[in-house]
Amino acid sequence: MSEAPRAEPTAATARARTPTAAALIIGNELLSGKVEEANLVVLARTLRTLGIRLQRVVMVEDTVDVIAREVRILSETYDWLFTSGGVGPTHDDVTIEAVAKAFGVAVVSSQEMEAMLRAHYKSACTEGHLRMALMPEGAVLEVTDEIRWPTVRMNNTWVMPGIPEIFRMKLPVIIERVGRGRAYVSRAVYTKMDEGDLKPLLDAVVAAFPDVDVGSYPTWQSDKYKTKLTFDGQDELRVDAARDAFVASLPEGEPQAL
Amino acid sequence: MSEAPRAEPTAATARARTPTAAALIIGNELLSGKVEEANLVVLARTLRTLGIRLQRVVMVEDTVDVIAREVRILSETYDWLFTSGGVGPTHDDVTIEAVAKAFGVAVVSSQEMEAMLRAHYKSACTEGHLRMALMPEGAVLEVTDEIRWPTVRMNNTWVMPGIPEIFRMKLPVIIERVGRGRAYVSRAVYTKMDEGDLKPLLDAVVAAFPDVDVGSYPTWQSDKYKTKLTFDGQDELRVDAARDAFVASLPEGEPQAL
Repeated sequence: MSEAPRAEPTAATARARTPTAAALIIGNELLSGKVEEANLVVLARTLRTLGIRLQRVVMVEDTVDVIAREVRILSETYDWLFTSGGVGPTHDDVTIEAVAKAFGVAVVSSQEMEAMLRAHYKSACTEGHLRMALMPEGAVLEVTDEIRWPTVRMNNTWVMPGIPEIFRMKLPVIIERVGRGRAYVSRAVYTKMDEGDLKPLLDAVVAAFPDVDVGSYPTWQSDKYKTKLTFDGQDELRVDAARDAFVASLPEGEPQAL
Repeated sequence: MSEAPRAEPTAATARARTPTAAALIIGNELLSGKVEEANLVVLARTLRTLGIRLQRVVMVEDTVDVIAREVRILSETYDWLFTSGGVGPTHDDVTIEAVAKAFGVAVVSSQEMEAMLRAHYKSACTEGHLRMALMPEGAVLEVTDEIRWPTVRMNNTWVMPGIPEIFRMKLPVIIERVGRGRAYVSRAVYTKMDEGDLKPLLDAVVAAFPDVDVGSYPTWQSDKYKTKLTFDGQDELRVDAARDAFVASLPEGEPQAL
Protein backbone atom coordinates (compact mmCIF):
# COMPACT_ATOMS: atom_id res chain seq x y z
CA MET A 1 0.00 0.00 0.00
CA SER A 2 2.97 2.32 -0.52
CA GLU A 3 0.93 3.97 -3.30
CA ALA A 4 -1.51 5.44 -0.73
CA PRO A 5 -2.14 9.14 -1.39
CA ARG A 6 0.15 11.28 0.76
CA ALA A 7 -1.93 14.44 1.02
CA GLU A 8 -0.68 17.14 3.34
CA PRO A 9 -2.79 18.05 6.38
CA THR A 10 -5.14 20.88 5.44
CA ALA A 11 -4.17 24.40 6.42
CA ALA A 12 -7.01 24.48 8.94
CA THR A 13 -5.71 21.40 10.74
CA ALA A 14 -2.21 22.77 10.91
CA ARG A 15 -3.37 26.16 12.21
CA ALA A 16 -5.72 25.20 15.01
CA ARG A 17 -3.80 23.87 17.98
CA THR A 18 -5.82 21.21 19.74
CA PRO A 19 -6.39 22.07 23.42
CA THR A 20 -4.97 19.47 25.81
CA ALA A 21 -6.15 18.12 29.14
CA ALA A 22 -5.10 15.90 32.02
CA ALA A 23 -7.16 14.16 34.68
CA LEU A 24 -6.18 13.57 38.30
CA ILE A 25 -8.18 10.80 39.92
CA ILE A 26 -7.99 10.80 43.71
CA GLY A 27 -8.83 8.11 46.21
CA ASN A 28 -7.38 5.26 48.27
CA GLU A 29 -10.53 3.24 47.53
CA LEU A 30 -9.64 3.16 43.82
CA LEU A 31 -6.01 2.13 44.30
CA SER A 32 -7.04 -0.64 46.69
CA GLY A 33 -9.61 -1.93 44.21
CA LYS A 34 -12.39 -1.49 46.75
CA VAL A 35 -14.22 0.76 44.32
CA GLU A 36 -13.95 0.57 40.54
CA GLU A 37 -13.11 3.90 38.92
CA ALA A 38 -16.07 5.10 36.83
CA ASN A 39 -15.55 8.74 35.90
CA LEU A 40 -12.61 8.63 33.55
CA VAL A 41 -14.43 7.10 30.61
CA VAL A 42 -17.23 9.68 30.65
CA LEU A 43 -14.75 12.52 31.04
CA ALA A 44 -12.66 11.15 28.16
CA ARG A 45 -15.70 10.87 25.89
CA THR A 46 -16.95 14.32 26.82
CA LEU A 47 -13.57 15.93 26.12
CA ARG A 48 -13.40 14.10 22.82
CA THR A 49 -16.68 15.64 21.67
CA LEU A 50 -15.33 19.05 22.71
CA GLY A 51 -12.22 18.58 20.56
CA ILE A 52 -9.95 18.46 23.62
CA ARG A 53 -7.15 15.90 23.72
CA LEU A 54 -6.87 14.08 27.05
CA GLN A 55 -3.18 13.22 27.21
CA ARG A 56 -2.48 12.03 30.71
CA VAL A 57 -4.31 10.54 33.67
CA VAL A 58 -2.78 10.13 37.11
CA MET A 59 -4.36 8.32 40.03
CA VAL A 60 -3.05 8.99 43.54
CA GLU A 61 -3.91 8.39 47.18
CA ASP A 62 -5.67 10.90 49.50
CA THR A 63 -2.48 12.71 50.51
CA VAL A 64 -2.37 16.51 50.41
CA ASP A 65 1.26 16.90 49.32
CA VAL A 66 1.04 14.23 46.64
CA ILE A 67 -2.14 15.74 45.19
CA ALA A 68 -0.78 19.30 45.40
CA ARG A 69 2.42 18.38 43.55
CA GLU A 70 0.42 16.64 40.85
CA VAL A 71 -2.04 19.54 40.45
CA ARG A 72 0.86 21.96 40.09
CA ILE A 73 2.60 19.92 37.38
CA LEU A 74 -0.52 18.96 35.43
CA SER A 75 -2.14 22.40 35.54
CA GLU A 76 1.09 23.94 34.24
CA THR A 77 1.56 21.36 31.48
CA TYR A 78 -1.95 21.03 30.05
CA ASP A 79 -4.60 23.54 29.01
CA TRP A 80 -7.16 22.00 31.36
CA LEU A 81 -6.97 19.81 34.43
CA PHE A 82 -9.91 17.89 35.83
CA THR A 83 -9.69 16.38 39.28
CA SER A 84 -12.10 13.68 40.45
CA GLY A 85 -12.65 12.77 44.09
CA GLY A 86 -11.62 13.89 47.54
CA VAL A 87 -14.33 16.55 47.76
CA GLY A 88 -16.52 16.50 50.86
CA PRO A 89 -16.47 17.07 54.59
CA THR A 90 -14.47 14.10 55.93
CA HIS A 91 -10.81 13.57 56.85
CA ASP A 92 -10.03 11.84 53.52
CA ASP A 93 -11.39 14.76 51.48
CA VAL A 94 -8.25 16.81 50.94
CA THR A 95 -8.50 17.90 47.31
CA ILE A 96 -9.54 21.50 48.02
CA GLU A 97 -6.62 21.97 50.42
CA ALA A 98 -4.25 20.41 47.89
CA VAL A 99 -5.47 22.58 44.99
CA ALA A 100 -5.04 25.69 47.15
CA LYS A 101 -1.51 24.57 48.01
CA ALA A 102 -0.72 23.89 44.36
CA PHE A 103 -1.73 27.44 43.38
CA GLY A 104 -0.13 28.99 46.47
CA VAL A 105 -3.35 30.43 47.87
CA ALA A 106 -5.23 30.08 51.15
CA VAL A 107 -8.34 28.00 51.77
CA VAL A 108 -11.26 30.31 52.45
CA SER A 109 -14.94 29.80 53.13
CA SER A 110 -17.16 31.00 50.30
CA GLN A 111 -20.00 33.11 51.69
CA GLU A 112 -22.08 32.16 48.66
CA MET A 113 -21.57 28.43 49.26
CA GLU A 114 -22.11 28.82 52.99
CA ALA A 115 -25.48 30.46 52.34
CA MET A 116 -26.45 27.65 49.96
CA LEU A 117 -25.43 24.97 52.49
CA ARG A 118 -27.37 26.67 55.31
CA ALA A 119 -30.43 26.96 53.06
CA HIS A 120 -30.11 23.29 52.12
CA TYR A 121 -29.50 21.74 55.55
CA LYS A 122 -31.51 24.33 57.51
CA SER A 123 -31.39 23.71 61.29
CA ALA A 124 -29.52 20.39 60.79
CA CYS A 125 -26.50 22.23 59.32
CA THR A 126 -23.29 21.27 61.15
CA GLU A 127 -19.67 22.43 61.05
CA GLY A 128 -19.07 19.30 58.98
CA HIS A 129 -21.52 20.42 56.33
CA LEU A 130 -20.04 23.91 56.27
CA ARG A 131 -16.64 22.46 55.38
CA MET A 132 -18.10 22.03 51.91
CA ALA A 133 -18.03 25.83 51.56
CA LEU A 134 -14.22 25.81 51.73
CA MET A 135 -12.35 26.55 48.53
CA PRO A 136 -9.05 27.91 47.25
CA GLU A 137 -8.95 31.70 47.45
CA GLY A 138 -9.74 33.09 44.00
CA ALA A 139 -11.65 30.01 42.84
CA VAL A 140 -14.75 30.51 40.73
CA LEU A 141 -18.09 28.84 41.41
CA GLU A 142 -19.25 27.68 37.99
CA VAL A 143 -22.97 27.21 37.36
CA THR A 144 -25.27 27.04 34.37
CA ASP A 145 -28.94 27.95 34.08
CA GLU A 146 -29.85 24.30 34.64
CA ILE A 147 -27.17 23.26 37.14
CA ARG A 148 -27.29 25.70 40.01
CA TRP A 149 -25.21 23.77 42.55
CA PRO A 150 -21.71 25.14 41.90
CA THR A 151 -18.63 23.41 40.56
CA VAL A 152 -15.30 24.79 41.81
CA ARG A 153 -12.82 25.95 39.18
CA MET A 154 -9.41 27.30 40.14
CA ASN A 155 -7.81 28.86 37.05
CA ASN A 156 -7.64 25.97 34.55
CA THR A 157 -8.37 23.30 37.17
CA TRP A 158 -11.87 21.90 37.59
CA VAL A 159 -12.51 20.25 40.96
CA MET A 160 -15.05 17.49 40.35
CA PRO A 161 -16.63 15.14 42.91
CA GLY A 162 -15.78 11.45 42.86
CA ILE A 163 -19.32 10.10 43.27
CA PRO A 164 -20.17 8.94 39.75
CA GLU A 165 -23.76 10.24 39.75
CA ILE A 166 -22.68 13.75 40.76
CA PHE A 167 -19.67 13.72 38.43
CA ARG A 168 -22.02 13.01 35.52
CA MET A 169 -24.51 15.66 36.64
CA LYS A 170 -21.78 18.27 36.50
CA LEU A 171 -20.41 17.47 33.05
CA PRO A 172 -22.80 19.90 31.29
CA VAL A 173 -21.16 22.73 33.24
CA ILE A 174 -17.79 21.80 31.75
CA ILE A 175 -19.29 21.47 28.28
CA GLU A 176 -20.83 24.92 28.50
CA ARG A 177 -17.84 26.68 30.08
CA VAL A 178 -14.86 25.05 28.40
CA GLY A 179 -16.38 25.59 24.98
CA ARG A 180 -16.56 23.42 21.97
CA GLY A 181 -13.53 23.06 19.72
CA ARG A 182 -13.28 20.91 16.67
CA ALA A 183 -14.71 17.50 17.61
CA TYR A 184 -12.84 14.32 16.79
CA VAL A 185 -14.33 11.94 14.27
CA SER A 186 -13.73 8.22 14.41
CA ARG A 187 -14.12 5.48 11.81
CA ALA A 188 -13.82 1.74 12.35
CA VAL A 189 -13.02 -1.18 10.05
CA TYR A 190 -13.33 -4.84 11.11
CA THR A 191 -11.28 -7.67 9.62
CA LYS A 192 -10.68 -11.36 10.13
CA MET A 193 -6.94 -10.83 9.69
CA ASP A 194 -4.67 -10.87 12.72
CA GLU A 195 -2.30 -8.08 13.70
CA GLY A 196 0.76 -9.91 12.45
CA ASP A 197 -0.69 -10.04 8.95
CA LEU A 198 -2.10 -6.53 9.12
CA LYS A 199 1.15 -4.90 10.18
CA PRO A 200 2.53 -3.97 6.69
CA LEU A 201 -0.85 -2.54 5.63
CA LEU A 202 -1.10 -0.50 8.82
CA ASP A 203 2.46 0.76 8.52
CA ALA A 204 1.63 2.08 5.03
CA VAL A 205 -1.48 3.97 6.12
CA VAL A 206 0.27 5.35 9.23
CA ALA A 207 3.11 6.65 7.03
CA ALA A 208 0.73 8.21 4.51
CA PHE A 209 -1.57 9.83 7.09
CA PRO A 210 0.54 11.18 9.94
CA ASP A 211 -2.34 13.44 11.01
CA VAL A 212 -4.71 10.48 11.54
CA ASP A 213 -4.45 8.31 14.65
CA VAL A 214 -4.64 4.68 13.54
CA GLY A 215 -5.49 2.09 16.19
CA SER A 216 -5.48 -1.70 16.03
CA TYR A 217 -7.43 -3.77 18.56
CA PRO A 218 -7.60 -7.56 18.52
CA THR A 219 -10.67 -9.11 20.07
CA TRP A 220 -11.19 -12.43 21.77
CA GLN A 221 -14.90 -11.97 22.09
CA SER A 222 -16.28 -12.11 18.56
CA ASP A 223 -16.38 -14.71 15.82
CA LYS A 224 -17.36 -12.05 13.28
CA TYR A 225 -13.96 -10.36 13.25
CA LYS A 226 -10.47 -10.72 14.69
CA THR A 227 -9.10 -7.18 14.65
CA LYS A 228 -10.80 -3.79 14.81
CA LEU A 229 -8.97 -0.91 13.14
CA THR A 230 -9.82 2.66 14.03
CA PHE A 231 -9.07 5.96 12.30
CA ASP A 232 -9.37 9.11 14.39
CA GLY A 233 -8.73 12.76 13.79
CA GLN A 234 -10.22 16.20 13.68
CA ASP A 235 -10.29 16.54 9.88
CA GLU A 236 -13.13 14.35 8.67
CA LEU A 237 -11.93 14.27 5.06
CA ARG A 238 -8.50 13.05 6.11
CA VAL A 239 -9.92 10.43 8.47
CA ASP A 240 -12.18 9.11 5.71
CA ALA A 241 -9.31 9.13 3.21
CA ALA A 242 -7.11 7.12 5.59
CA ARG A 243 -9.88 4.60 6.21
CA ASP A 244 -10.58 4.31 2.45
CA ALA A 245 -6.89 3.85 1.61
CA PHE A 246 -6.61 1.13 4.23
CA VAL A 247 -9.75 -0.66 3.03
CA ALA A 248 -8.47 -0.54 -0.56
CA SER A 249 -5.28 -2.29 0.56
CA LEU A 250 -7.11 -5.25 2.14
CA PRO A 251 -7.29 -8.60 0.33
CA GLU A 252 -10.50 -9.88 -1.23
CA GLY A 253 -13.28 -10.78 1.22
CA GLU A 254 -12.27 -8.02 3.64
CA PRO A 255 -13.36 -5.87 5.46
CA GLN A 256 -16.09 -7.62 7.48
CA ALA A 257 -19.54 -6.05 7.67
CA LEU A 258 -20.84 -6.43 11.25
CA MET B 1 -15.14 9.37 70.93
CA SER B 2 -11.90 10.88 72.16
CA GLU B 3 -11.77 8.02 74.67
CA ALA B 4 -11.12 5.47 71.88
CA PRO B 5 -8.28 3.11 72.82
CA ARG B 6 -4.99 4.39 71.39
CA ALA B 7 -3.05 1.15 71.11
CA GLU B 8 0.31 1.33 69.40
CA PRO B 9 0.79 -0.59 66.15
CA THR B 10 2.12 -4.05 66.90
CA ALA B 11 5.83 -4.69 66.50
CA ALA B 12 5.14 -6.94 63.52
CA THR B 13 3.28 -4.17 61.70
CA ALA B 14 6.00 -1.67 62.35
CA ARG B 15 8.77 -4.06 61.28
CA ALA B 16 7.43 -5.37 58.00
CA ARG B 17 7.62 -2.68 55.35
CA THR B 18 4.72 -3.04 52.95
CA PRO B 19 5.92 -3.49 49.36
CA THR B 20 4.69 -0.78 46.99
CA ALA B 21 3.64 -0.82 43.36
CA ALA B 22 2.67 1.46 40.50
CA ALA B 23 0.76 0.75 37.31
CA LEU B 24 1.35 2.30 33.90
CA ILE B 25 -1.66 1.99 31.61
CA ILE B 26 -0.85 2.60 27.96
CA GLY B 27 -3.12 3.38 25.04
CA ASN B 28 -4.63 6.21 22.98
CA GLU B 29 -7.89 4.26 22.87
CA LEU B 30 -8.29 4.66 26.64
CA LEU B 31 -7.54 8.39 26.74
CA SER B 32 -9.97 9.02 23.90
CA GLY B 33 -12.68 7.06 25.68
CA LYS B 34 -13.03 4.71 22.73
CA VAL B 35 -12.30 1.78 25.01
CA GLU B 36 -13.07 1.65 28.74
CA GLU B 37 -10.07 0.68 30.85
CA ALA B 38 -10.69 -2.72 32.48
CA ASN B 39 -7.41 -4.04 33.90
CA LEU B 40 -6.70 -1.64 36.74
CA VAL B 41 -9.38 -2.91 39.08
CA VAL B 42 -8.31 -6.57 38.81
CA LEU B 43 -4.66 -5.63 39.23
CA ALA B 44 -5.51 -3.50 42.28
CA ARG B 45 -7.50 -6.31 43.88
CA THR B 46 -4.81 -8.88 43.14
CA LEU B 47 -2.06 -6.71 44.66
CA ARG B 48 -4.24 -6.11 47.69
CA THR B 49 -4.51 -9.85 48.37
CA LEU B 50 -0.73 -10.08 48.03
CA GLY B 51 -0.23 -7.36 50.63
CA ILE B 52 1.25 -4.96 48.07
CA ARG B 53 0.22 -1.31 48.19
CA LEU B 54 -0.64 0.15 44.78
CA GLN B 55 0.22 3.81 45.24
CA ARG B 56 0.15 5.39 41.81
CA VAL B 57 -1.40 4.80 38.41
CA VAL B 58 -0.44 6.73 35.30
CA MET B 59 -2.17 6.52 31.93
CA VAL B 60 -0.36 7.76 28.84
CA GLU B 61 -0.57 7.71 25.05
CA ASP B 62 1.30 5.28 22.76
CA THR B 63 4.48 7.38 22.58
CA VAL B 64 7.86 5.73 23.14
CA ASP B 65 9.57 8.62 24.92
CA VAL B 66 6.62 9.33 27.19
CA ILE B 67 6.30 5.67 28.19
CA ALA B 68 10.06 5.27 28.66
CA ARG B 69 10.28 8.29 30.95
CA GLU B 70 7.38 7.02 33.01
CA VAL B 71 8.80 3.47 33.27
CA ARG B 72 12.11 4.90 34.45
CA ILE B 73 10.55 7.03 37.17
CA LEU B 74 7.98 4.50 38.37
CA SER B 75 10.36 1.51 38.38
CA GLU B 76 12.86 3.52 40.43
CA THR B 77 10.25 4.78 42.89
CA TYR B 78 8.18 1.67 43.62
CA ASP B 79 9.06 -1.93 44.40
CA TRP B 80 7.04 -3.22 41.46
CA LEU B 81 5.78 -1.70 38.24
CA PHE B 82 3.06 -3.26 36.11
CA THR B 83 2.49 -1.97 32.59
CA SER B 84 -0.72 -2.72 30.70
CA GLY B 85 -1.07 -2.37 26.94
CA GLY B 86 1.00 -1.56 23.90
CA VAL B 87 2.23 -5.13 23.49
CA GLY B 88 1.83 -6.67 20.04
CA PRO B 89 3.04 -6.48 16.48
CA THR B 90 1.54 -3.20 15.20
CA HIS B 91 2.85 0.38 14.93
CA ASP B 92 1.02 1.47 18.10
CA ASP B 93 2.63 -1.30 20.20
CA VAL B 94 5.69 0.48 21.55
CA THR B 95 5.85 -0.67 25.18
CA ILE B 96 8.71 -3.16 24.70
CA GLU B 97 10.83 -0.52 22.96
CA ALA B 98 10.00 1.97 25.70
CA VAL B 99 10.84 -0.41 28.54
CA ALA B 100 14.20 -1.21 26.88
CA LYS B 101 14.87 2.52 26.57
CA ALA B 102 13.95 3.10 30.20
CA PHE B 103 16.44 0.48 31.37
CA GLY B 104 19.10 1.54 28.84
CA VAL B 105 19.23 -1.81 27.04
CA ALA B 106 18.73 -2.93 23.44
CA VAL B 107 15.66 -4.64 22.02
CA VAL B 108 16.57 -8.19 21.07
CA SER B 109 14.64 -11.11 19.64
CA SER B 110 14.22 -13.96 22.13
CA GLN B 111 15.10 -17.27 20.49
CA GLU B 112 12.81 -19.03 22.92
CA MET B 113 9.85 -16.79 22.01
CA GLU B 114 10.65 -17.01 18.32
CA ALA B 115 10.51 -20.80 18.52
CA MET B 116 7.17 -20.65 20.33
CA LEU B 117 5.74 -18.26 17.75
CA ARG B 118 6.92 -20.40 14.84
CA ALA B 119 5.42 -23.48 16.49
CA HIS B 120 2.14 -21.63 17.05
CA TYR B 121 1.68 -19.96 13.63
CA LYS B 122 3.46 -22.69 11.64
CA SER B 123 3.66 -21.89 7.92
CA ALA B 124 1.46 -18.77 8.38
CA CYS B 125 4.12 -17.13 10.59
CA THR B 126 5.01 -13.64 9.29
CA GLU B 127 7.57 -10.99 10.18
CA GLY B 128 4.70 -9.27 11.97
CA HIS B 129 4.13 -12.27 14.22
CA LEU B 130 7.85 -12.55 14.96
CA ARG B 131 7.87 -8.99 16.30
CA MET B 132 6.20 -10.50 19.36
CA ALA B 133 9.52 -12.21 20.15
CA LEU B 134 11.17 -8.83 20.70
CA MET B 135 12.04 -7.90 24.26
CA PRO B 136 14.42 -5.75 26.29
CA GLU B 137 17.85 -7.38 26.55
CA GLY B 138 18.08 -9.09 29.92
CA ALA B 139 14.34 -9.52 30.33
CA VAL B 140 13.05 -12.73 31.87
CA LEU B 141 10.25 -14.82 30.39
CA GLU B 142 8.09 -15.72 33.37
CA VAL B 143 5.94 -18.84 33.24
CA THR B 144 4.22 -21.14 35.70
CA ASP B 145 3.38 -24.81 35.39
CA GLU B 146 -0.14 -23.87 34.26
CA ILE B 147 0.58 -20.77 32.21
CA ARG B 148 3.24 -21.66 29.67
CA TRP B 149 2.89 -18.63 27.37
CA PRO B 150 5.50 -16.27 28.82
CA THR B 151 5.07 -12.92 30.50
CA VAL B 152 7.94 -10.46 30.06
CA ARG B 153 9.56 -9.11 33.23
CA MET B 154 12.41 -6.61 33.07
CA ASN B 155 13.88 -6.26 36.57
CA ASN B 156 10.94 -5.09 38.71
CA THR B 157 8.77 -4.21 35.71
CA TRP B 158 6.09 -6.62 34.46
CA VAL B 159 5.00 -6.03 30.88
CA MET B 160 1.36 -7.07 30.67
CA PRO B 161 -0.91 -7.08 27.61
CA GLY B 162 -3.83 -4.65 27.38
CA ILE B 163 -6.46 -7.11 26.17
CA PRO B 164 -8.51 -7.75 29.31
CA GLU B 165 -8.92 -11.51 28.79
CA ILE B 166 -5.16 -12.04 28.40
CA PHE B 167 -4.33 -9.65 31.24
CA ARG B 168 -6.53 -11.73 33.54
CA MET B 169 -5.06 -15.00 32.30
CA LYS B 170 -1.59 -13.82 33.25
CA LEU B 171 -2.35 -12.64 36.79
CA PRO B 172 -1.58 -16.06 38.35
CA VAL B 173 2.01 -15.68 37.09
CA ILE B 174 2.36 -12.46 39.05
CA ILE B 175 0.75 -14.02 42.11
CA GLU B 176 3.20 -16.94 42.01
CA ARG B 177 6.34 -14.92 41.25
CA VAL B 178 5.85 -11.74 43.25
CA GLY B 179 5.05 -13.70 46.36
CA ARG B 180 2.48 -13.23 49.01
CA GLY B 181 3.03 -10.67 51.73
CA ARG B 182 0.66 -9.85 54.49
CA ALA B 183 -2.78 -9.42 52.90
CA TYR B 184 -4.94 -6.42 53.68
CA VAL B 185 -8.16 -6.94 55.57
CA SER B 186 -11.15 -4.70 55.13
CA ARG B 187 -14.23 -4.08 57.26
CA ALA B 188 -17.31 -2.05 56.38
CA VAL B 189 -19.97 -0.27 58.43
CA TYR B 190 -23.13 1.25 56.93
CA THR B 191 -25.00 4.18 58.44
CA LYS B 192 -27.92 6.47 57.64
CA MET B 193 -25.91 9.48 58.83
CA ASP B 194 -24.40 11.86 56.30
CA GLU B 195 -20.73 12.77 56.10
CA GLY B 196 -21.24 16.16 57.69
CA ASP B 197 -22.64 14.53 60.83
CA LEU B 198 -20.12 11.69 60.79
CA LYS B 199 -17.09 13.93 60.56
CA PRO B 200 -16.31 14.32 64.32
CA LEU B 201 -16.73 10.55 64.90
CA LEU B 202 -14.45 9.78 61.97
CA ASP B 203 -11.85 12.31 63.07
CA ALA B 204 -11.69 10.57 66.45
CA VAL B 205 -11.16 7.08 65.04
CA VAL B 206 -8.60 8.35 62.50
CA ALA B 207 -6.65 10.00 65.31
CA ALA B 208 -6.78 6.90 67.52
CA PHE B 209 -5.87 4.42 64.75
CA PRO B 210 -3.21 6.00 62.52
CA ASP B 211 -2.29 2.55 61.20
CA VAL B 212 -5.81 1.88 59.89
CA ASP B 213 -7.01 3.48 56.66
CA VAL B 214 -10.51 4.84 57.29
CA GLY B 215 -12.67 5.61 54.26
CA SER B 216 -16.04 7.31 53.97
CA TYR B 217 -18.22 6.85 50.89
CA PRO B 218 -21.65 8.43 50.48
CA THR B 219 -24.06 6.63 48.19
CA TRP B 220 -26.88 7.93 46.07
CA GLN B 221 -28.05 4.48 45.11
CA SER B 222 -29.42 2.90 48.28
CA ASP B 223 -32.28 3.67 50.62
CA LYS B 224 -30.82 1.28 53.21
CA TYR B 225 -27.87 3.50 54.09
CA LYS B 226 -26.40 6.90 53.29
CA THR B 227 -22.70 6.46 54.01
CA LYS B 228 -20.42 3.44 53.91
CA LEU B 229 -17.39 3.53 56.22
CA THR B 230 -14.44 1.25 55.58
CA PHE B 231 -11.54 0.20 57.80
CA ASP B 232 -8.48 -1.27 56.05
CA GLY B 233 -5.10 -2.43 57.19
CA GLN B 234 -2.72 -5.33 57.44
CA ASP B 235 -3.19 -5.99 61.15
CA GLU B 236 -6.58 -7.64 61.53
CA LEU B 237 -6.82 -6.98 65.27
CA ARG B 238 -6.20 -3.27 64.77
CA VAL B 239 -8.68 -3.07 61.89
CA ASP B 240 -11.35 -4.75 64.00
CA ALA B 241 -10.56 -2.53 66.99
CA ALA B 242 -10.93 0.60 64.85
CA ARG B 243 -14.23 -0.62 63.44
CA ASP B 244 -15.51 -1.51 66.92
CA ALA B 245 -14.46 1.83 68.41
CA PHE B 246 -16.25 3.65 65.59
CA VAL B 247 -19.41 1.56 65.95
CA ALA B 248 -19.43 2.22 69.71
CA SER B 249 -19.37 5.95 69.02
CA LEU B 250 -22.46 5.89 66.79
CA PRO B 251 -25.85 7.05 68.15
CA GLU B 252 -28.66 4.62 68.92
CA GLY B 253 -30.19 2.88 65.90
CA GLU B 254 -26.87 2.79 64.05
CA PRO B 255 -25.13 1.05 62.31
CA GLN B 256 -27.47 -0.32 59.62
CA ALA B 257 -27.56 -4.05 58.96
CA LEU B 258 -27.77 -4.57 55.19
